Amino acid sequence: MASSDQEPSGTSPSFGRRVFKAFKALLERMSGKVVEFSRKLKKLGQDDPRRIIHSLKVGLAITLVSLFYYFKPLYDGFGVNAIWAVLTVVVVFEFSVGSTLGRGLNRILATLLAGGLGLGAHRLATLSGETGEPILIAIFVFIIAAIVTFLRFLPQMKARYDYGLMVFILTFCLVSVSGYRDDEVIQMAFRRLTTIMAGCFTTVIVCIVICPVWIGVELHKLVVGNLEKLGNFLEGFADEYFQQSYAGDSRDKSFLEGYKSVLTSKSNEETMANLARWEPRHGQFRFRHPWKQYLKVSNLSRQCAYKIEALHGYLQSEIQTPQEDRSKIQEPCKIISSECGKALKELASTMKKMIRSSALAQPHITKSKDTLENLKTMLKSGQIWKDSDILEITPAAAVASLLMEVVSWTEKVAEAVCELESLAHFKSPKPRVTPEDLPQVIVDFLQEIIIGAPDDHVITIDGPSDRCLMRNSSRVAKGSRIHS
Amino acid sequence: MASSDQEPSGTSPSFGRRVFKAFKALLERMSGKVVEFSRKLKKLGQDDPRRIIHSLKVGLAITLVSLFYYFKPLYDGFGVNAIWAVLTVVVVFEFSVGSTLGRGLNRILATLLAGGLGLGAHRLATLSGETGEPILIAIFVFIIAAIVTFLRFLPQMKARYDYGLMVFILTFCLVSVSGYRDDEVIQMAFRRLTTIMAGCFTTVIVCIVICPVWIGVELHKLVVGNLEKLGNFLEGFADEYFQQSYAGDSRDKSFLEGYKSVLTSKSNEETMANLARWEPRHGQFRFRHPWKQYLKVSNLSRQCAYKIEALHGYLQSEIQTPQEDRSKIQEPCKIISSECGKALKELASTMKKMIRSSALAQPHITKSKDTLENLKTMLKSGQIWKDSDILEITPAAAVASLLMEVVSWTEKVAEAVCELESLAHFKSPKPRVTPEDLPQVIVDFLQEIIIGAPDDHVITIDGPSDRCLMRNSSRVAKGSRIHS
Repeated sequence: MASSDQEPSGTSPSFGRRVFKAFKALLERMSGKVVEFSRKLKKLGQDDPRRIIHSLKVGLAITLVSLFYYFKPLYDGFGVNAIWAVLTVVVVFEFSVGSTLGRGLNRILATLLAGGLGLGAHRLATLSGETGEPILIAIFVFIIAAIVTFLRFLPQMKARYDYGLMVFILTFCLVSVSGYRDDEVIQMAFRRLTTIMAGCFTTVIVCIVICPVWIGVELHKLVVGNLEKLGNFLEGFADEYFQQSYAGDSRDKSFLEGYKSVLTSKSNEETMANLARWEPRHGQFRFRHPWKQYLKVSNLSRQCAYKIEALHGYLQSEIQTPQEDRSKIQEPCKIISSECGKALKELASTMKKMIRSSALAQPHITKSKDTLENLKTMLKSGQIWKDSDILEITPAAAVASLLMEVVSWTEKVAEAVCELESLAHFKSPKPRVTPEDLPQVIVDFLQEIIIGAPDDHVITIDGPSDRCLMRNSSRVAKGSRIHS
Repeated sequence: MASSDQEPSGTSPSFGRRVFKAFKALLERMSGKVVEFSRKLKKLGQDDPRRIIHSLKVGLAITLVSLFYYFKPLYDGFGVNAIWAVLTVVVVFEFSVGSTLGRGLNRILATLLAGGLGLGAHRLATLSGETGEPILIAIFVFIIAAIVTFLRFLPQMKARYDYGLMVFILTFCLVSVSGYRDDEVIQMAFRRLTTIMAGCFTTVIVCIVICPVWIGVELHKLVVGNLEKLGNFLEGFADEYFQQSYAGDSRDKSFLEGYKSVLTSKSNEETMANLARWEPRHGQFRFRHPWKQYLKVSNLSRQCAYKIEALHGYLQSEIQTPQEDRSKIQEPCKIISSECGKALKELASTMKKMIRSSALAQPHITKSKDTLENLKTMLKSGQIWKDSDILEITPAAAVASLLMEVVSWTEKVAEAVCELESLAHFKSPKPRVTPEDLPQVIVDFLQEIIIGAPDDHVITIDGPSDRCLMRNSSRVAKGSRIHS
């Protein structure tokens, strides 16, 4: 008080103003951060509105389960243990159904098994008298914790049962250790199991009933998207490479960068495939949908993406083949690149629609292979680039050679998609012309051809077919390679 | 009983034998599986014995914490809540120190904050009377759960605080909901906090004191290993490509496949870098060690790995350049490849020893760049491959072009390692000749040269230097490119 009185009156307003200014600056900075943060949150919600729905679902499930506490009849049944139901919801509720189901089943099974084992350990320990009991329980706990922790390192365990193993240790310790002080140990173990089951069921029901997010569908979309991104790149690459209209070109070039995410999506896809295996039938996806085949398709398209990464490098490489030399291989390269792109997009569409139409990619692959042979002959003849600088034609030669690799990987992707078609029981496409629409004469004629046709050839009238056309033809091709 | 008496005695031994056989077969199959499983477990332990130690550590920590239950004085302090300490150990104890510390800190902080907020919510709800209380609490729980769940989607939150946010919801629900039935809500919140802290401290101490596994060290080793794998490939590639001694060659070819793990290690490295940031000073790693720079080095070496993947493709590609044509570029390609390999291994060794020796990679890079210029001139002259089949020389041209790319990526990796050297305060190498060892005449002479030297040149007498030689010289090189 005294000091404020003694303060020179001249400095007081300037001091006040300074404080005010500092306070204002702080406020502005803070409000700036708040605005930025809320913009981030808004974007997060706009990018995927299911995130908002998920948050509300979690809130709902927790509120539902906490009713155990508020309503006396329910509370009398469970007692203080009812809180385990709330904890279970928080711990088990995940964004996707697969993940939630996996955690829920892991939790219930592990609680059941570890509860039983814990009871056994408790009973065994009580037999050894009052002094021996804590020692025996401590030894049991040590052994079980160490063994189960070690099991968590097993890759196949880690992939699907990691959470279950953790809950196993948790429950075993809970039952055996707290059994030492709690005489009603069986009742406690039983209550823990029932509350956890109540929590899990509430979670799973809320998760599946209200706007479910199926991780299988997400994986499906991801793999389809990867194929589309590669297709987009290949469709646009040749135009980009042979025209080289970089500077001042204002077209959307995002298709040239899209493939990059394919390069590093492997571990993400593997996690998703592991979680998808927990999901029941939904939409067109069965319980035992061949998720592993999705990983195969994806790994093959990643190999394709590595080649594309190399191709992409030649768009901006230091040494460039002159436009004149480049134009000599422009025609075949354009066809190969765009036909491979079309084939990949056709395969993506096959997967997207889940219809047996991977054969539609075959003409594109055949065309690109034919053009590839032409290109080879052209290069073999030695007519082009005869008087060119070897250094300068190197990049163009490398591009041609990479495109050849792309063709063979595209073919492998097509084979994998074709396998997927039959493994996942994709629907047959609707026939554009049914046999009933045809005059009898033509039907007879066609039947005669089909019956007379050799085994290696398959003739379809654009109708439903259980056989995979491509597989057949590729097998023939392989066979002929062996013979030649 | 009666039926067994009536059984014809003739079939009895054969039936018994059949049962015995079936039982024996089952036993054999089971024992086969058990043997296989135990072999897997043994391999798991042999591959990394720290896994066994970790398992024992977890067992020890849980047993230690469960003492709270067995000893009356400790039990009287914590009561039934002591079980939270056990649960905390199970949930928080992870393989690496960084992960354990991250989870522990997340758990303690989240419990503290959510406990406080839960108490506030409970107090506010009690003010609204007996009927209003559960409704208000339910509304609070719904809002907090939904908001915090949404926050978990934020990438920067997910990376470091995901577990904390989950514990936040957990504790808030626990305190506010069970507060409805428990009048000593403050005491309950306090006990929960203290037991959790006791659990976390025990865990962290056991984790750090007994054979700690530092995730920072693991990341360090991983990045160093990646560089070494790329170096091994490049050192061996040229021999492999130009001799093409595939069939019947029994040498160890594992170095040709090692790089493949680099292609897909991105997400793993990012997780490790996030966890490493929790770790305190250990060994030569400070608390704020530049882990992000490790990611930068790693991403650049991954770019290099993509080129190597393309190079690898040419070892087995369908069209091969004849040995005769290949041999024309053999000499420069061998030098470029092996010098880049040596440079990468030198950089790996710099990082491994944590000594400012990245400059030792510079001579190799310079040599490979010089050879690259020679190769370019050679290709430009058009003397080689003059009468060759363009199709056949395409792969060799592509290999040459890829090696050129490898050189430029190696240089970028070297720059990143050089940055890391100064960011991470690597030690200076021990001088092999100290100025004191030299006769005064030479010292004077050298000083004269140094003082008289222009700014762009740095002369070192193989002694400690704070400047990064390579950076300087590469800046000069860049400058000269701009001028030319």
